[in-house]
Parts: sequence; C-alpha cells; structure tokens
Amino acid sequence: MQFPKFVAPDFNKEPFVSAPDVKTEPAGDGFLPENFYATTIYPEYFKIDGKWTMLHKSRMDCAVVIKDGIPTVTEPRRIKAGDQVVVGRKDDGTTGVYVHANCFVEANDDSNSAFAFRTGQSRETSFSWEYDRLYEILRHDRDNGYIVWVLGPACVFDYDSRTAMANLIKKGYCDCLFAGNALATHDLEAALFNTGLGQDIYTKKHVENGHYNHLHTINLVRRAGSIERFLDEYKLDTGVMHALTTTGTPFVLAGSIRDDGPLPEVIPNVYEAQNAMREHTRKATTVICLATQLHTIATGNMTPSYCETEEGIRPVYIYSVDISEFAVNKLHDRGSLSVKGLVTNIQDFLVNLERNL
Amino acid sequence: MQFPKFVAPDFNKEPFVSAPDVKTEPAGDGFLPENFYATTIYPEYFKIDGKWTMLHKSRMDCAVVIKDGIPTVTEPRRIKAGDQVVVGRKDDGTTGVYVHANCFVEANDDSNSAFAFRTGQSRETSFSWEYDRLYEILRHDRDNGYIVWVLGPACVFDYDSRTAMANLIKKGYCDCLFAGNALATHDLEAALFNTGLGQDIYTKKHVENGHYNHLHTINLVRRAGSIERFLDEYKLDTGVMHALTTTGTPFVLAGSIRDDGPLPEVIPNVYEAQNAMREHTRKATTVICLATQLHTIATGNMTPSYCETEEGIRPVYIYSVDISEFAVNKLHDRGSLSVKGLVTNIQDFLVNLERNL
Amino acid sequence: MQFPKFVAPDFNKEPFVSAPDVKTEPAGDGFLPENFYATTIYPEYFKIDGKWTMLHKSRMDCAVVIKDGIPTVTEPRRIKAGDQVVVGRKDDGTTGVYVHANCFVEANDDSNSAFAFRTGQSRETSFSWEYDRLYEILRHDRDNGYIVWVLGPACVFDYDSRTAMANLIKKGYCDCLFAGNALATHDLEAALFNTGLGQDIYTKKHVENGHYNHLHTINLVRRAGSIERFLDEYKLDTGVMHALTTTGTPFVLAGSIRDDGPLPEVIPNVYEAQNAMREHTRKATTVICLATQLHTIATGNMTPSYCETEEGIRPVYIYSVDISEFAVNKLHDRGSLSVKGLVTNIQDFLVNLERNL
Amino acid sequence: MQFPKFVAPDFNKEPFVSAPDVKTEPAGDGFLPENFYATTIYPEYFKIDGKWTMLHKSRMDCAVVIKDGIPTVTEPRRIKAGDQVVVGRKDDGTTGVYVHANCFVEANDDSNSAFAFRTGQSRETSFSWEYDRLYEILRHDRDNGYIVWVLGPACVFDYDSRTAMANLIKKGYCDCLFAGNALATHDLEAALFNTGLGQDIYTKKHVENGHYNHLHTINLVRRAGSIERFLDEYKLDTGVMHALTTTGTPFVLAGSIRDDGPLPEVIPNVYEAQNAMREHTRKATTVICLATQLHTIATGNMTPSYCETEEGIRPVYIYSVDISEFAVNKLHDRGSLSVKGLVTNIQDFLVNLERNL
Repeated sequence: MQFPKFVAPDFNKEPFVSAPDVKTEPAGDGFLPENFYATTIYPEYFKIDGKWTMLHKSRMDCAVVIKDGIPTVTEPRRIKAGDQVVVGRKDDGTTGVYVHANCFVEANDDSNSAFAFRTGQSRETSFSWEYDRLYEILRHDRDNGYIVWVLGPACVFDYDSRTAMANLIKKGYCDCLFAGNALATHDLEAALFNTGLGQDIYTKKHVENGHYNHLHTINLVRRAGSIERFLDEYKLDTGVMHALTTTGTPFVLAGSIRDDGPLPEVIPNVYEAQNAMREHTRKATTVICLATQLHTIATGNMTPSYCETEEGIRPVYIYSVDISEFAVNKLHDRGSLSVKGLVTNIQDFLVNLERNL
Repeated sequence: MQFPKFVAPDFNKEPFVSAPDVKTEPAGDGFLPENFYATTIYPEYFKIDGKWTMLHKSRMDCAVVIKDGIPTVTEPRRIKAGDQVVVGRKDDGTTGVYVHANCFVEANDDSNSAFAFRTGQSRETSFSWEYDRLYEILRHDRDNGYIVWVLGPACVFDYDSRTAMANLIKKGYCDCLFAGNALATHDLEAALFNTGLGQDIYTKKHVENGHYNHLHTINLVRRAGSIERFLDEYKLDTGVMHALTTTGTPFVLAGSIRDDGPLPEVIPNVYEAQNAMREHTRKATTVICLATQLHTIATGNMTPSYCETEEGIRPVYIYSVDISEFAVNKLHDRGSLSVKGLVTNIQDFLVNLERNL
Repeated sequence: MQFPKFVAPDFNKEPFVSAPDVKTEPAGDGFLPENFYATTIYPEYFKIDGKWTMLHKSRMDCAVVIKDGIPTVTEPRRIKAGDQVVVGRKDDGTTGVYVHANCFVEANDDSNSAFAFRTGQSRETSFSWEYDRLYEILRHDRDNGYIVWVLGPACVFDYDSRTAMANLIKKGYCDCLFAGNALATHDLEAALFNTGLGQDIYTKKHVENGHYNHLHTINLVRRAGSIERFLDEYKLDTGVMHALTTTGTPFVLAGSIRDDGPLPEVIPNVYEAQNAMREHTRKATTVICLATQLHTIATGNMTPSYCETEEGIRPVYIYSVDISEFAVNKLHDRGSLSVKGLVTNIQDFLVNLERNL
Repeated sequence: MQFPKFVAPDFNKEPFVSAPDVKTEPAGDGFLPENFYATTIYPEYFKIDGKWTMLHKSRMDCAVVIKDGIPTVTEPRRIKAGDQVVVGRKDDGTTGVYVHANCFVEANDDSNSAFAFRTGQSRETSFSWEYDRLYEILRHDRDNGYIVWVLGPACVFDYDSRTAMANLIKKGYCDCLFAGNALATHDLEAALFNTGLGQDIYTKKHVENGHYNHLHTINLVRRAGSIERFLDEYKLDTGVMHALTTTGTPFVLAGSIRDDGPLPEVIPNVYEAQNAMREHTRKATTVICLATQLHTIATGNMTPSYCETEEGIRPVYIYSVDISEFAVNKLHDRGSLSVKGLVTNIQDFLVNLERNL
C-alpha cells in the first residue's frame, strides 16, 4: 500500500520566517470573537511563540483555541468564555496561520490532473480503478487504520447487502459504525421477521400486517432494555447490529426527528451525538458513507483530509456512495474536496465489496 | 371552497352493533403490551362501554391509551407504566376498533379514480389542476385553517423564492413553520450578507471569504442571544425569519447532526422537537413541505389525513414538493396516502404560488 | 427452470361460444379504418370463421390484419391500402376479440400479490431475489432461448463493465444486441485508445487531445468500411463489438440525431431500424435493457409479454436496469407491465452478472 | 440589451505573424485524412494565403474544408473525396489554426469568475438572475435574433405549460421548433381529446380507452395527409402545433426508433433530420431546450457559442432546462461550455416565462 507522500511546509522560507505570531482574542459566553478564524479540512499551522505548530486532529468550520502554546480545534458551541481564540481570516502564512492544502504528492501525478479535478462523478463515470483502490485501502486499514462506516437504512432492506455488511464487520473491516434509529430498527426487524418495513427482504413479498413489524421490533427492544439483550433474548444471529454486538465494534446511533421509538441506544440530543461521532472521526483513516445524506454530511463536516498515524501523515479516504449524483457531489461542493464519490446502488456496492475482500 | 363530504360510519349496522368493547392491557415502563394496536392516518373509532368513540387529533404509528372512557393517541415513547393500551391488530370493527379509511366522498368522483390513484407523481405528470386546487385551499385556509410550512434550506438560496416565501408569511398564508438550523442560518446570512453559503443569492457570484458568512452569522446570532435580537441589532428587514418574527408567527427549528452552531432557538433533543412540532400538526389543516426529506417525513408521520374544524370534518391537505420523484413518492409509499406530490424546483413553486395568491 | 404455467382460455364457455366473428374494415393508403383495434403485449385471440385463433408473435399498439383466415400483427406504417384490419375496441371476447392478460399462473402465488404489484421499483427496493431469478433465467435461455441486450453507451465507459459484457457475449449469453452509434463508437475507441470520450476507462485520467479519440475512431472505421475490417486492420481484440464480431452474434445499430459519424453499420432510417429490431424481438425470450431510455422504450414497444417456444408458451422476461427510478418505471407506466426494473449503476450490474454466470 | 463585447484577436502580434499557412490534405471517399483537425464551438481562424480568415457559422466536431481560399465547416459524413481538409491538432495559432475561446468580455467581470465557472447547476442553485437575464435576451431576440426551441413531450402533458408554449409562439418568441414525433403527437392528441397519453391534461383523470387516443390521433393525421390539414379538418385551435402552423413558424420533427406512426412531417432519416436542424442552428441567436436529452444534445452538438449578426459578433445563448441535474450538466460536460442550465420542471419554467414576457 503506497500512500501519496506528505510534504511538510519549509518554515525556514518566507513568508513563514518573518510572519508574526498568530493573534488571539478572548471568546464570550457561547460565542467567538467577531473576527474568528475557521479551520479547514487540511493540515494547518499556527505560529506561536515564534514556532510553527501543527494543529492535530482537525476538522473544518471550527475555532482554534490556544492554551499553553498548544492550538486545539474546538467546535464553536463548546467554546467557553475567556478561551483565547485565533482571529484573522488570512491563511497564507503571513499572519501566523498557514493552511497546507496541497500537502500530498501522488507518485505518478501528471499535468492533466487539474482538468480531471473539475470533473464531477456521474452515472457515466468509470469506477473500476476506484473500486480496486478501495479494496487496497480497506485491506491495509483493516490492520493499520480505523475504518468508519456511515449507513443509511437502505443497506438492510436487501438480503444480500445486509449479509455482506454483516460479513464485512465480522471480517474486521469496520472499526466503528454511524447510523440512525432507522438502520438499527430495520436491521433488527429483519433479524426477527426477515422483513424490512414489512416486505420480505429476499422475496420482496408483503407479509400480512407487515407495517407493524418495525414498531413491534422497537417495542421489544425497548422492553429488553438494549439491543444486545434483545438479540440474546430472541436468539437472533443475523445482520449488522448482531455483527457489531458480537464483535464488540462501537457504534453511534444519532437521533432524528423522523424516528419511531427510539431504540434505547439512540442519542436524542444531536450535539451530544456529534460529540460521540467526533471521538471516532478523530481516529478515522477511511470513512465509507452509504445512502444517507444526513449522516454523510454530518460525518464529512467533522472529518479532516489527513491523519497522523504510525506510518506518518497520510490522507483520510472518504467515500460517498449513493444512487443520486446530487447526494454524491453535494459533500464535495460543501468544501470536503477529498471525498471520492461512487454513483451506484449501495446494495451492489456492498455485495461487490464483500466478495472482493 | 367545497371540501369532499365526510361520511360517518353507521354504527347501527353490523359488525358494529355486535362487536365487543375494545380490549386494553397495561403498558410497562417505557414499552407497550406485546399485542399493541397502532394508529393510522385515518379517523378511528373505539368501542368503549358499548359506544363507538372517535379518536381526536390522531397520527399514525402510535398507541391508543384509554382513560376515563376516552381514547387518546400517544407516542410509544411517552407511554407510562400502567397506561391502559388498546391491543389487537384488526381494524374492521369486529374487535371494537374501526379504521374509517374511505371517509371522504368527492363531489364528482367517477370509476376511473381507482386506476388514477395508483399513478405516482413524476416529472411528466400534469400539475395544472393541482396548482389551481392549492390556490383555492390556501385562500380558504388563510382565514379558516392552520397552514404549516416545512422548509428545506434551498428555499432561501435564491433571491426570488426567499422573497416569495417572506411575502407569503406576511400575507397571512403561514400559521407555523418547521425547519432546521440550516434554513434559519442561511436566511439570516442572506439578510446580513445577501449570500447563501457565500454565493450571492441573486447574481450567484462567489464573494471573497464567503464560506465564512454563515459561520459568522451564526456567531453573531449566538452573541445577540436570539434571532429577534440579532435582526434588531443589525436592522435587517428581509427574509423568512424576519417575516416570522415581525408577524409573530411561531416556528420550530429542530436540531440535526449536520448543524453548525446551532442558533439559540434550535431544539437539540429531537424528541422534544417532535413534541413541539406535534403541537402544531394537531391543528394543521394544510401542510406544505418543500425540499427536505428529513423534515417532510417527520411531519408526515405526525399528521393525520383529516381534521375537525368549525366547518366539520375535512381532509388535511399535505403537499410534498421536491425535484426528486423519489423524495415526493417516498412519503406516499410509507403509508401517508393522502399526500399530494409536485415534482419541481421549489424556487419556481414558491414564486408561482406567491404570484397567484 | 420452472416457468409460471400458461393457462389457455376455455373457448367452450361463454362469452366465447356466442361471440360473433371479429369484424374487419379495409385500410386506406397509409392509414387504418377509423375504429381500428390496437394490440397489447398479451396473448390475443380473434374469432375467425367461428374459430378462436391466437395471434402469433404479437407486440403492442399495432393493427391486426386478417388474410386467408390468419390474423397478423402489423405496424400501422406498414399497412397497405385494402388490408382487412380488425375494428372495434372491446377485448373481452364479446365482439370476437379476446385479450388474455392473466395467462400465467405462478406456482406459489398468494393473496399479497395484488398489493405488491402496485409497488414501483426504487433505490430502496430489495433486488436479491431478482438477481437470483435472473441468473436462473439466463442460464436456461442461453441454451433454450433468445437473449436480446439493449445497451446505452455507459456500458463501455468503464473497464470492468466493458470486459464483463464482452465475456457474457463470448460465453453465449447474448443472441442479439441493440444499441446506437455511440455504444459502438466508444467501445471501438476503448479498443484502440483505451479511452471513453477521451478519458482512460480504467484510471479515469484525461489523455491529451482525448476529445479527438472518438472522432478519430469513427473516421478510421469509415475508412476501413466496416467494424469488422477495422478491428482486423488494427488487430484489436477487446470489447463488445469485438466479441459480437468474433462470435458472429447479430447486432442492430440504430441511428439517432445525436450521432457523430456514423459508423458504416448504423441504420440511418429509424423505421428501417425498427424493422430490423423487430425481427429479433419476435424471437426474444429475455430482453435486458441497460442505461438507455431511447432504445429501452423502443424495444419495450415491440416486445410481447409471452413467447411460443418448444417448451410451450412462457413469459418473455424484460429487465430495465438504470440508475434513475424515472427511467426504470417509465416503461412500466407506458403499459409494458411485464417489465422488471432494477435501479442501479449498470457497471455494477454487469460485473455482478458476469461473475455469477 | 448589453452583450458582452467581442474582442478580436490581434493578428499583428506573434505567433500569428510568423505562423505558416494552415495545411490541408485531400479527403477519401467518405472519410477524412488521418490527422484531420476538428472544430470547436468557438470562433476559429485559419491562415490562408498569409491572411487569417474567420470560419463562419461553425459547429463543433466537424472538419474544415478549404476551397478558393474560404474555409467551410463540414460534417465528416458530408465530405467528398478530394475535398481539401485542414489537418493538424494544434489550435494556438502556431500552425495556422487559432481557436479564440475567450472572445467575449463581460462588462463587470471580476476575479471570482474562474471559481464560479466551475460550479455545476443543481436543485440548490439560485436561478433568479438567470431568469431575469433570459427575459431580457428573449425580448431582444424576438425582434433582433433567431430563437430556436427544442421540446420534449412533457411540455404538452400539462394544460398550463402547453398553453404557455403556444402563447410564446404566437407572441413571436419562437423562430423555429425542434422536436420528435411524440411532442407533435401528444400535442395533437390534446387538441382533439384534451388528453396526453390518455390522461386529461388538466384534471389528470384517465379517460376510458384513453390509451387509444394518441394512436387514433396519429391515424387521423396520416389520413389527412399533414398536420395542417388535420387541424383544419377537425377545426382544432389549441396547442403548439396549431400555433406553429397558424404563424407559419418552421419546425423540424426528427424521427426516432421509439416512434408510433409516424406523423407525415417526421423525417425518418436521422442524418437528413440533422441537416434540416443545422439549417436553423446556423441562424440561431438563442436556443432553449426543454426536457429532452436526445434533441438537446443533438442541437448542442451543432450550435456554435457565437453568432454574427447586424449588431456584430455576440454569444449564442443556449439554455438547457430539465428536472435532472445529470441531463442539465451533461451537455456542459460534453464540451458545450456555453450552455446555461436550469434545474426545474419545465411546466413551471414555461408558465413563468410566458407570464413575464
């Protein structure tokens, strides 16, 4: 596995040498100084006490607090009154802030990349290379990285893809899973009734009173007190939640206003859910988002384009897989330029992936 | 304005006369009895002490608690231990539960309606009649109903549609607005900077450092302490939030995991947000959902197909407007059969609407 | 391979026994009698000289000409003055015309089928069973049927899917291919330059002056005089057109107004192209349409829902695979009710299929 | 109406002065010399006998034939053996060929345009300015230009949009219309039966035996011998074809393999249809394409980005309006960079347009 090489800035050159220390101003109670600086997805450096210091485990659209000479990326909502917050909106080094956007050099890059860069992903884009690269990354990161999956409920509405995802978890290709109440609910519905929203996940036949199945499942889980106890109690042994539970893989289920239930593990406060997700994206080396705009954008917002590992600084690979070009390209358009998109049905994607790993 | 006529069931006929009283069982602590009955979007009747009693202000997928002879629709998460919950899954009257699905009779209905009913909405569906009917409904409900709007952020990314929506509010066509942090944020960004995500909402030109605009706006609102104080402080007088604030129209901003900020008025706990929304859908006579799957489905889940007004029992009209057939048809597929869909860009929809009202 | 059983009408019962002979009127020069009868995709019977006779190799929206007691389905544009054309628009047997819509009985059909029938295909539909069934059909029809493929150009823009399709042809899973100038052009471009519209079909890199590649390819084929001579001359041995040529599989390339070139084999007159396609759909037992609305609808229009084989009367299976629900469902909405849709990227579909066959 | 200013190249500068005359080679019988030069959508100049000469009424992907010192753009299929065809693939002037891509200067252009340029059109793009600009262009071009419309059948499936389009024609906003057999057929079906594919275009109700309506209409037109005679014979006075006929506006109906019928005016040979369309795009100053990928791409392929009028050289404005981002962006991705896209339902688009003009 060969990553593009990280090339650090040369801080012995201008404008770095002559640049002043970065400026800060104290935050108010729940708000930032007016001229606050906001982070990007790229490696960033701040000149503090005459030295350029890298920001660790960054994410975009956040404030930088400097304390004891150390810069820390902080969500604005977590800022406390008096925090010393970096101010100024230049990021070219001249004011003590440097964003190192082009930090990775591809082995055999060429002059056409500029043009290729502008090309969005569509149903007519070739994905052969992207698949092969993804297999390579996942094989590497299973043992040497931290793979986060972000799943929409469609992943468990199909027998083959639900089985494929469960197998990927069991084989070690998932270090953490993000989803909502619906993914977990319909996965457990499938474990108990073999249906998704009342429709057989293999034959697609509608079962009688099937619209009750997910409500019934939620009720039983709530009675059991937890997903794990529910699976035990009913001796269920298939699906995504079962694979997570038996392998001890952590998951974050974030609440949303369209939830029935919810299941006991769902986090009702969305900002606490963000905090829980953020603990994992700080560690992420690869993120795979399937068929959920809400969770994909939320995750993309809090994932940097690089990570520091024992192998050095390398890219974080983010994949957004959806059948809609709009959904795939949206994350990219919001500034998450390192996202790779695949426009396809995630059922086929999962089955493909599992078969090749 | 002529509504389809509500025809009540004739409870002097069978099977109603011979049917037993509805059965209940006590709920547990946070869960329902196993065989719980779940509500629909239609008028429902329960036989209690020998009398058929209608359930008021219903919504789908909920439990029915009977206390002092009165049935009340209750979200499962709000059930308390010991509540007497209706059980059984038949709804044809024979067990004391009757769902009155075909309760409305159109004036000039005909034999083709069955076939027409099956036809989904697509980009090739004719919407002329639907528009004319919607104008009629809105004119009536402005003075005699309760109109709830559910907006995605795209509504304020365009100068004309943002202005049209603000005018509709000022003209009295909005009794309550549901949205998320993003709609309010980008509307206020437009009020302050004339941009949406840093792009001029009229000329589409990108302004310098424009990606700061929404973060900057959020920060100022948080410093001001509320949207209203922010608008006052900066003497802003355009847009949706300004129209709501100056007309005293209530709004519910529900939090989500993709939020920056959030703005002070956003409700972080999604189930509390559901409760707040539910207070308004109980009163709704017309609901118009634009370009947001999350909020549309959430609202659809908690809105019945009928309402009781001074004019009698009439349909609640729910419109789902989105550029994606999938989004428009999804709510319908989930059981909200009374939803009418329009497949179009909501910018054009809003401009059309405002011009015709 | 078990097909649903064909059940013939019982013409010894009413209304068949008392029905009069079917009526005909003479056609004009280029037009039908005003009250012409139009065919469907189902088996149809006409009472001629007191006997009910089945129409062979039918297709929808055509006229029926009776000559020497034999009914023949005929495109209106091929009608000649004086042809005796069936008139009347009833098809329940009472007027001598009977459409046998529900002619196939599934082995284990059940009461839910009516409801399931109404459900369209979407990105959230489970396709596991559909895939397994398709594998089974293709294995059967390779040796006992006639498999027609209808391909849009996206099939050859990706290295893996182009290879998969070529392999399917070589393995005998294709008896005829329908496409346009673009599919053939970009397939040959890939054979010569390894690009699709100038982009490497594996790495996606843009090659220099790559926008010339397809024009250049077309020009060389025109100079060579035929696709086969071009492949020979340049010793090319990959792709769809190569697989067709070396296996002697027939293909129809229909012209369209967006063509560059065209290649020598493309049929410029669209009605002659329809005639050429129709020769193959008359024989088809399975039709697989990938990522082309134009050719898919054209083919669907001329393919019946049943065929007469040595194994008896069986269904013709038509699959429409596209990433857009609108495209997949459109054929169905136009009356081709026997079409099965899969909503996915056809790259994944082809790779899946080839791997499992 | 202020157009961006055309700035001609300064041929007194290098490399133009020292450049050699352009080279040509003779064409073969039905094919070009191997190293042929292909045209773009931009103004192009060829050095002939020491003078730089502009190519008139160009289009992309074609050959340039030089005869008597005059360069003429020629579709490769229309090349004759012995034609002197420009060869070489450089276009920077150094070899006698110069493509003047950035020939128009906007009045108040600014530094952000480069970035803005890269942004695709989506359902979340603001279209207010685009609409206002389009109104301005159409008002100007009605009297001073040549407006070509390219329509898919969806335009006549809705009562309001069909009426709006007919009014735009009657008011002089259409100099030529391109469409297929379906648009004309369903427009005439609506004139005769008030339905589109058997569904009432206002109420959306399905009429009995409505699937016959378009076949019946086609048959009557074929019997009448022409659209005009059919309209007269049945005294029909609504819709697009009626407006074209009564105003004497030319139209091109191009055949396709999905046609029923066809109507008498439809051109069966697609390359003859291309020729007929090309006669009009040579004159076009504005082109508006609605809801048809096939005809839109065909038209885009043969329309240059500039035109020479009495007011001087100005842009040709091409609008592609469709509900699918993929369709809107596709033309742009194929090299037709001057296309402006609007992502919306064309029903609303047409109604909006007619109301504002």
